[in-house]
Amino acid sequence: MKVGDRHYRSLWADETPGAVHIIDQARLPHVFETRTIASADAMAEAIAGMHVRGAPLIGVAAAFGVALAVARDPSDESISRASKMLRATRPTAVNLAWAIGRMRERLAGLPPGERAGAAWAEAQALADEDVALNEAIGRHGLVLLEREYAARRRPINILTHCNAGWIATVDWGTVTAPLFMAHDSGIPVHVWVDETRPRNQGLLTAWELAGHGVPHTLVADNAGGHLMQRGQVDLVLVGADRVSRRGDVCNKIGTYLKALAARANDVPFYAAVPTPTIDWGIEDAMAEIPIEERSEDEVRIVRGLDPQGRFAAVQIAPAATRVANPAFDVTPAELVTGLITEKGVVRALERELLAFWPRQRESKAYLT
Amino acid sequence: MKVGDRHYRSLWADETPGAVHIIDQARLPHVFETRTIASADAMAEAIAGMHVRGAPLIGVAAAFGVALAVARDPSDESISRASKMLRATRPTAVNLAWAIGRMRERLAGLPPGERAGAAWAEAQALADEDVALNEAIGRHGLVLLEREYAARRRPINILTHCNAGWIATVDWGTVTAPLFMAHDSGIPVHVWVDETRPRNQGLLTAWELAGHGVPHTLVADNAGGHLMQRGQVDLVLVGADRVSRRGDVCNKIGTYLKALAARANDVPFYAAVPTPTIDWGIEDAMAEIPIEERSEDEVRIVRGLDPQGRFAAVQIAPAATRVANPAFDVTPAELVTGLITEKGVVRALERELLAFWPRQRESKAYLT
Repeated sequence: MKVGDRHYRSLWADETPGAVHIIDQARLPHVFETRTIASADAMAEAIAGMHVRGAPLIGVAAAFGVALAVARDPSDESISRASKMLRATRPTAVNLAWAIGRMRERLAGLPPGERAGAAWAEAQALADEDVALNEAIGRHGLVLLEREYAARRRPINILTHCNAGWIATVDWGTVTAPLFMAHDSGIPVHVWVDETRPRNQGLLTAWELAGHGVPHTLVADNAGGHLMQRGQVDLVLVGADRVSRRGDVCNKIGTYLKALAARANDVPFYAAVPTPTIDWGIEDAMAEIPIEERSEDEVRIVRGLDPQGRFAAVQIAPAATRVANPAFDVTPAELVTGLITEKGVVRALERELLAFWPRQRESKAYLT
Repeated sequence: MKVGDRHYRSLWADETPGAVHIIDQARLPHVFETRTIASADAMAEAIAGMHVRGAPLIGVAAAFGVALAVARDPSDESISRASKMLRATRPTAVNLAWAIGRMRERLAGLPPGERAGAAWAEAQALADEDVALNEAIGRHGLVLLEREYAARRRPINILTHCNAGWIATVDWGTVTAPLFMAHDSGIPVHVWVDETRPRNQGLLTAWELAGHGVPHTLVADNAGGHLMQRGQVDLVLVGADRVSRRGDVCNKIGTYLKALAARANDVPFYAAVPTPTIDWGIEDAMAEIPIEERSEDEVRIVRGLDPQGRFAAVQIAPAATRVANPAFDVTPAELVTGLITEKGVVRALERELLAFWPRQRESKAYLT
């Protein structure tokens, strides 16, 4: 999407194996910076430090991480080492494991001399596919929003949590694609943007929506239930880090609270989910998906701009205060109205998912 | 309670009419300061600016505001003007209206010459009563916690939201009184402290608990549902800004989301409620209680300490980003397991409340 007048993807690669460029999200939306990544180690660091983030994007980033390792050393050991390291950066999103698995399948049969070019091409293909997946999700989500608008004939209020925007993917965004398309086609949408403590990824969503001119209002995470009670939310739309075969949605911490409020107030709750986010080997997300526990300082330290407009941080709690920081939660399938996938909207029921993906009846888990 | 080695109330008055002293909560817990308030206008400013905050405390503070006005000018006009101004500072908590009403009743029949002393004594009495109410709530809450501990024989995990601690009252705190008493009597408790965006009053709770040595862990507001899903919360305990006669609990924004999660996970949800917090004239809190909408900058600007340990602020969202900041929400009575009052624990049902307070059958609203 556009940043100012220029079109960006959140990640783009040189034509020949060697370097990948990213929008560095660590200081966004306060500071816009790009960064060049030239090794698998640097990519692992960028993923763990959330310089690139968002389940779809870290899948593609990890694929390029493997390709960068192969460019330096195409041996099986090199691929194996890089895969293990990249996979360990973030335990919850399944896209990492999926993308790395696909790279390894592609490289398995090839002689070492052919691997560098093949790996680069495969990672490029994954990036392009991600854009296509998001665009397709956008078209299916647009139909939902068109229907809401046809029924209400007034601006449609959508609440979203965290950032499943274009910078959480290679382009478009799973959640923002339908919003951008609706806005572009003249359907009035207004987005309630959850701040999403502790890392405030909602600010990224607000930045993206502002960049595209979509009306939006930032709210504290605490406000969503109240807004739904008052009839001010027509639809909740979130992304996902991993979805189980029966449709449980593992997403950013706090999503579950919004799903409970949506159910209590008869507000439809949708997750935008490209196929690589579904882990067919997971039946019960609550029991089987590991929840990443992140640093205590993510809660203690808040970043923004100081009164002089410089990037700065304040510590809101003393170092002696113990903090827990689980990064994700699980919304059980029974609270999910539907999954907006690139194949269409599907109810969160195993039999309906398998009707869309019949080859997955016997699948195994990517990681647990 | 103690701050360091010294015992404080959150508000205390000179013996003769003239000045009231407060712990200034605007920069707590980062900076501990006290402040002297010598006029009704200054008290109104202190309440509106949340230098004093918490439903019980602002009731007592408003009573002293009236007494300060009377000390300067005991006329009916002066009392009327001060009452109106003080009542308008915060629209949601009922304690303001209740305390001002009580001051006016006390002063109504008196000749002007006797009013200053009577007003000061009445405000003092209100402050002392508040301490007694909290202590009684503490004893009843303690019984609940003792029962939980007897059943489980392991530390009891309590989740709380916002600050209903001793500095939100004159002393003890509605939520913290049972926690302090349990801790003092050897019942192991551990408190999950919600950060409570946007104003982060959870940091005040953490500061109070640390001051008393009660084990606690700070979490983002988003985490509570996840903790309850995982069986890590035995009981939710919150304060209230206004409770309807049927037991709906109006409290800090985000409370409702925790109540929904508690219900979904079979976790008991209690509100600690002194009598002055019950508005007998309110039937349906959702329809009848005005919800204060506070400044957008409360969401945009986060305060804490800079790396040099100085009080500082960062702006997390641009001024151009629209913000909504509703400060309270309503938890319907059906999600409330019980109200811990100074008279005992009562279920959130009108007939049970009226069994405790039979004279309130015909009451009118304090304000709407």
